[in-house]
Amino acid sequence: MGEKQTGLRLTQGISRACQIHPAKTAVICGSERLSWADFSARIARLATVLRGQGVAAGARVAILAESSPKYLEAYYATLWAGGIIAPVNSRFALGEMSEMLRDCAPTVLLADDAFLPQATQLAASLHPAPQLLCLDTLALETVTPMEDAAAGGDDIACLFYTGGTTGRAKGVALSHANLALNALNISGPLSLNEEMVHLHCGPLFHLGAGARVFATTFFGCTHVVLPRFDPGQVLETIARERVTHVVIVPTMAVALLAVPDFDAHDLSSLRILSYGAAPMPAALRDALLARLPGCGLLQSYGMTETSAVVTMLPPAWHDPARGKNGTAGRALAGIDLRIAGPDDQPLPLGEVGEIQVRGPTVMRGYWNQPELTARTVVQGWMKTGDAGHLDAEGFLTVVDRLKDMIISGGENIYSTEVENAIHDHPAVLECAVFGVPDALWGEAVHAVVLPRPGCVVDSAHVISHCRARIAGYKCPKSVTIATEPLPRSGANKIVKTSLRAAFRVPALEESPR
Amino acid sequence: MGEKQTGLRLTQGISRACQIHPAKTAVICGSERLSWADFSARIARLATVLRGQGVAAGARVAILAESSPKYLEAYYATLWAGGIIAPVNSRFALGEMSEMLRDCAPTVLLADDAFLPQATQLAASLHPAPQLLCLDTLALETVTPMEDAAAGGDDIACLFYTGGTTGRAKGVALSHANLALNALNISGPLSLNEEMVHLHCGPLFHLGAGARVFATTFFGCTHVVLPRFDPGQVLETIARERVTHVVIVPTMAVALLAVPDFDAHDLSSLRILSYGAAPMPAALRDALLARLPGCGLLQSYGMTETSAVVTMLPPAWHDPARGKNGTAGRALAGIDLRIAGPDDQPLPLGEVGEIQVRGPTVMRGYWNQPELTARTVVQGWMKTGDAGHLDAEGFLTVVDRLKDMIISGGENIYSTEVENAIHDHPAVLECAVFGVPDALWGEAVHAVVLPRPGCVVDSAHVISHCRARIAGYKCPKSVTIATEPLPRSGANKIVKTSLRAAFRVPALEESPR
Repeated sequence: MGEKQTGLRLTQGISRACQIHPAKTAVICGSERLSWADFSARIARLATVLRGQGVAAGARVAILAESSPKYLEAYYATLWAGGIIAPVNSRFALGEMSEMLRDCAPTVLLADDAFLPQATQLAASLHPAPQLLCLDTLALETVTPMEDAAAGGDDIACLFYTGGTTGRAKGVALSHANLALNALNISGPLSLNEEMVHLHCGPLFHLGAGARVFATTFFGCTHVVLPRFDPGQVLETIARERVTHVVIVPTMAVALLAVPDFDAHDLSSLRILSYGAAPMPAALRDALLARLPGCGLLQSYGMTETSAVVTMLPPAWHDPARGKNGTAGRALAGIDLRIAGPDDQPLPLGEVGEIQVRGPTVMRGYWNQPELTARTVVQGWMKTGDAGHLDAEGFLTVVDRLKDMIISGGENIYSTEVENAIHDHPAVLECAVFGVPDALWGEAVHAVVLPRPGCVVDSAHVISHCRARIAGYKCPKSVTIATEPLPRSGANKIVKTSLRAAFRVPALEESPR
Repeated sequence: MGEKQTGLRLTQGISRACQIHPAKTAVICGSERLSWADFSARIARLATVLRGQGVAAGARVAILAESSPKYLEAYYATLWAGGIIAPVNSRFALGEMSEMLRDCAPTVLLADDAFLPQATQLAASLHPAPQLLCLDTLALETVTPMEDAAAGGDDIACLFYTGGTTGRAKGVALSHANLALNALNISGPLSLNEEMVHLHCGPLFHLGAGARVFATTFFGCTHVVLPRFDPGQVLETIARERVTHVVIVPTMAVALLAVPDFDAHDLSSLRILSYGAAPMPAALRDALLARLPGCGLLQSYGMTETSAVVTMLPPAWHDPARGKNGTAGRALAGIDLRIAGPDDQPLPLGEVGEIQVRGPTVMRGYWNQPELTARTVVQGWMKTGDAGHLDAEGFLTVVDRLKDMIISGGENIYSTEVENAIHDHPAVLECAVFGVPDALWGEAVHAVVLPRPGCVVDSAHVISHCRARIAGYKCPKSVTIATEPLPRSGANKIVKTSLRAAFRVPALEESPR
């Protein structure tokens, strides 16, 4: 009944921010500052330019650039014109970028000066070739701003490409409603309101940072952008701009705490340090709590396909007395979460199985891959491919990627558990655990360990350390001591496939997802 | 792309509450207590009963009962079975109830013992007659609980009837997404989480209380229900159950403050006292702030058609130093708010015009009234019929119902402004202002004033009091001193149409909405 409902739209936050504080700072990057009125005007003008190049409802706009205010303008101008944002992972090799662009077939490719050479090469290699525009040289001042095309609801807003390390890259299609609901869902635990200042220090081509960009705008907070993650600059920027919120992955936390003059920075403005994407070793978490006494730690669990957050462990639950540290927290309001067996039926409480998620933040699907979508989202339930269990209070423990599970002598071993045990050792800086083929056991547990500078660790030492902490069958049978940082993906996760290659450990067969 | 998106659904909160704290108290009423596990089981069983009576997707279930835990079960069992809740205003005359029921044509009429006689009469008068079930005598223990039918998204969840005082009653159709988004929208300003305890003391047949019921469940908070508003019981209940949230209208605040042993109750658990539905006189607001020092005041503006909240003035903005008291606050995130002229075009900042609202909380429409819906929601914009203006920071001041605006000698006079001036007088307990036909001026301002017990106020006194505060043309030309409380609607608003009749003031012609 009635006409089509007006859906949630990601550009709405721009209009609302202009209604409640047009002169307030919208975006900060170094010495650059833009008010909401100016940011909004630039977006509406860039949208006119995009529309002039043919960007109408549903057209893709690829973005290949360093993080900057212009990247944010590219995000919102695309949506303002009714299009779909397709950020390019700037750490991809040219061939990977080309594959992604062929898949999403953008009408326009936006690049900055730094990436213009690659973008030129890419645009030329595509048929039909996208219009290539350089964000740094576009003159917007004289362009007439267009009205918001008012895309929203189930209209697709973004394609974020994931899983480039194995198999074909997957373009995760997320709608305006998906992302606006994620913004609403996380706003309570994060206490987001128009007085907050959010630092984006992760790459804007990943949803990890992207989801926070959308939430920051939706609630009229101020964006602070760093071109790339630099631990010293993160600390300086938090102090200078009185940043209240930041998202990191555990590796970044190690780097931040290692900054020599950490304690010289006034970090008292920080309210919530969010972490996720990889397990946080207990020692690292405790170090953060000790060094940031006024700041709450908040863990998130989720993935690109869930826009992104499924569960959160808010600051109050980091109190060791509550016994929930090490869990990923509970499902946000509105999200169905269950643990299912291989038959996709719910398992009894406490059993380990696949984490499955249903609700309005589950993706529209994988771009151009209906079969994969149908295998991944079954009767509304997103099969995450992660293994975990729930306790009687709904707290989720993520034990591992299902495909990272090691099966040794018939026992299931979750890499994360072994990695956590190794991380407990004070001389260990980084580590990764995976299975290697073994004639006797099927698979054997192998660990790669990078010692802290100045520390010496040997294989026997690591194994005996583990024996004191976890069951014998879970302990590494072999250990490689690394001399360089472990390889990382764009999302700063350790890339185990590369590790296996680098350390000449034969790759295990991996399923397509 | 992908399959149909899984939408927001109001029953999701029940499942989530059972996942995170099945043994925690879900509902309290007097000495009655139900855990989430028990509440959920009763809902799923009552849903089975409803399904057995033919309640499937889209069937209406009318509810005629006092507020109680069973009323909440009736709400959720209807949704669980896939049906539409149609609460009956229990203050309606039988004829009005009958008109409403003819309009929504329920499959089932649920009544409690108190209303069984009326319900029996009503059911017999309808063709086809609904199945009549008595909530107080249903035996649910042996019924097999059904699975959640999982209605959600744009599926209609409720019909709340409004505007019964003039013209045909309007059934406002609200979807699951409408109401779940309102719950998400208000959760930030209210700091709703699973540790909160919400007292429902307004009638559950109005969305004012209903919207809070949905939000309370959505965030797994505890419901406390009072059968009816009784100021002494409200205070006792807050103290006994450590209530954190309550919603009142200004009249209720007067009654609460008038309880002789107000200060003897421990109200320290109260975090947020929300008010709305009618303007809060400044003196009353200041009295509340003084008497409830630990509690934040939060003003809401909205209406049934907007599910319900459009703007909020959160506690921090009640600080007189910020200069926003008297406004209704700012639009919640995700909601477009504008002031439009008679041509539905936005007016310049600061000008008074119609308040118009667009966004995902705007109703699906008026039940069975497509023409009225099309006149009320135009290109997504809900024409509220209220007059107001916005300031440069997006704060909304609601000046009046458009139709309550008095036009005298060509000047627009907003009743609220005159009522606020009269309310400033310490001897005034209640007042209402409206226009009466006048040969010279077209309309003249008339006031009805009820003095506080033991106080004497006369007409000249009221007029001179106003002259010291507002422009001469806005002051009442005539005043009636009432000796009894002014007539109230179900939502506790003064019914000006009744007043005109009671005081033999000829009714002005009112438009259908």
